[in-house]
Amino acid sequence: MAAIIPLETPRRKATNALEQLTALVQDDLQAVNEVVLTRMQSSVPLIPQLAGYLIAAGGKRLRPILTLACARLCGYEGARHRKLAACIEFIHTATLLHDDVVDESELRRGSPSANTLFGNKATVLVGDFLFSRSFQLISEDGSPEVLRILSDACAVLAEGEVLQLTTSYNVQISEQGYLEVIRAKTADLFAAACRLGTVVAERPVAEEEALRTYGLNLGLAFQIIDDVLDYSAEQAQLGKTIGDDFREGKITLPVILAYNRSNELERQFFRRVLQDHQQKDGDLQQAIIILSRTGALKDAAERARHYGAIARDALGLFKPHPVKDALLDVIDFTLEREY
Amino acid sequence: MAAIIPLETPRRKATNALEQLTALVQDDLQAVNEVVLTRMQSSVPLIPQLAGYLIAAGGKRLRPILTLACARLCGYEGARHRKLAACIEFIHTATLLHDDVVDESELRRGSPSANTLFGNKATVLVGDFLFSRSFQLISEDGSPEVLRILSDACAVLAEGEVLQLTTSYNVQISEQGYLEVIRAKTADLFAAACRLGTVVAERPVAEEEALRTYGLNLGLAFQIIDDVLDYSAEQAQLGKTIGDDFREGKITLPVILAYNRSNELERQFFRRVLQDHQQKDGDLQQAIIILSRTGALKDAAERARHYGAIARDALGLFKPHPVKDALLDVIDFTLEREY
Repeated sequence: MAAIIPLETPRRKATNALEQLTALVQDDLQAVNEVVLTRMQSSVPLIPQLAGYLIAAGGKRLRPILTLACARLCGYEGARHRKLAACIEFIHTATLLHDDVVDESELRRGSPSANTLFGNKATVLVGDFLFSRSFQLISEDGSPEVLRILSDACAVLAEGEVLQLTTSYNVQISEQGYLEVIRAKTADLFAAACRLGTVVAERPVAEEEALRTYGLNLGLAFQIIDDVLDYSAEQAQLGKTIGDDFREGKITLPVILAYNRSNELERQFFRRVLQDHQQKDGDLQQAIIILSRTGALKDAAERARHYGAIARDALGLFKPHPVKDALLDVIDFTLEREY
Repeated sequence: MAAIIPLETPRRKATNALEQLTALVQDDLQAVNEVVLTRMQSSVPLIPQLAGYLIAAGGKRLRPILTLACARLCGYEGARHRKLAACIEFIHTATLLHDDVVDESELRRGSPSANTLFGNKATVLVGDFLFSRSFQLISEDGSPEVLRILSDACAVLAEGEVLQLTTSYNVQISEQGYLEVIRAKTADLFAAACRLGTVVAERPVAEEEALRTYGLNLGLAFQIIDDVLDYSAEQAQLGKTIGDDFREGKITLPVILAYNRSNELERQFFRRVLQDHQQKDGDLQQAIIILSRTGALKDAAERARHYGAIARDALGLFKPHPVKDALLDVIDFTLEREY
């Protein structure tokens, strides 16, 4: 007996949208985790030790989940997407390792960063190892299109890192400059992760373009909200660490908007704490006061909603499907999340 | 006796904002028009005849005005910006000529297009002549930075044309694809026009970046609103021509949003009229009904407001100045204009 599928399934709540999406691709994700664990092995014990430290500490696996979900949405029944999702996770992990060295970060997700524990040299080299592993996985897949998409994404990622190096610690970076950095560093990998799903399913280019639009704009929204949350008083009340970007002197959208809207005294403050790295007790609180007064946090979140709206419309091309609903909910989750 | 400049001058209305900006740079614009008229001369009479047809028919001269205004905002006192503004107008005119040939347009701004009157061959070649003239003007200016900015902008423009050729007549183009085309075809030249103002004034890179952000986002907003107005029922009531893009089968943001939000019957309609070019009486009205029902016109204008907000914040870096106020008003004018 066939189930009756309503034309529009009722929308779920944004809370736990990521868990819902994860549940929909659970078997695939299990397989991806196995690929990741197998392929980070090496006869050099330090490699799995260091790589595993970050990979096991585990983020949300958002990027590989997007690959799996988009493949599912496109009706793909094969297994290629599993290796490619692992590949995306390797590329992402490699850039995190290199980022932490470049930024001289001491913490990542509240734990000591890999470079703190294993040193800069090993961290850089294991990043290179993971990049190489990802291209081995691409080679095994054998598709020239996959190779093109992922090599493009890696080149853009590297360009984004260099661009950030030359601009992101300048308090007078423009909003456009910021957008170009986060597009290169975050959004293009989201876009690539989503596109792979249509490529393996051999779907028309219109669907590939739709999912590229979804991924890219979800990535922009995701990064902007990430940057907003780093100054969120609500976060602090929830006992979360805030102010990481502030302590590093990283110039993100909330600061750019606040700086543009500030008076000269406040601009001097931002230059002292972020550009000259002369911070003292109470400076973070002072920054949050200025960010609130100028509406910078509110309006940065508003900017993110624009990208969320583009991502939402992009999915309009697809027929009703549980994965489609979950991908829509992930947009709301990204915009409304508090962690 | 020094005039007292209030910290914040009261904001004017958006109506005629462009006229107000034009009035602020009136002398410079007069000089630019002279450069344009002198430099489009040639011993080959067809050249000034054809170039003059389009240049005299005159658009709003928005791009050269932006160069003049930004130079003024940056406190520039010299005369370099006049030739560079003329250069921007030549580049813009050259792309219009080539566009009309490529699109096989019969009308531009309600009059017969140059290619209709003078033929395709002459129109293409006079476009090339104007490109060459603009690089002569750049050469006379002598700044390597100006050469870099404008040669980059021209390369991006040409890429945008080719990109449009391969995507913009496909009803399933993505919103991201559309944004990339209008950025390349319109917004990057706006950005270059604004940047030149800071470059001649030798201002810090932060101001150049701010005006690049202003120009680029104003350009995006400008083009989106242009595309919305082509379907505006209010426009039609005012006796303006609408439906040019529709008749050409050009896929713009309102159509992209409507298509993504449509049912299969409506999608068939869009494919028939825009992709298969089978249009009959009443189709434009039918399209406007779908664009309204799906909220596509309203939401496309909403997308434009996002870019307007970015442009507005970018000017925050500059001290109070009549030109700053006028540039702010031009954003509102761009978003609210009905022609």
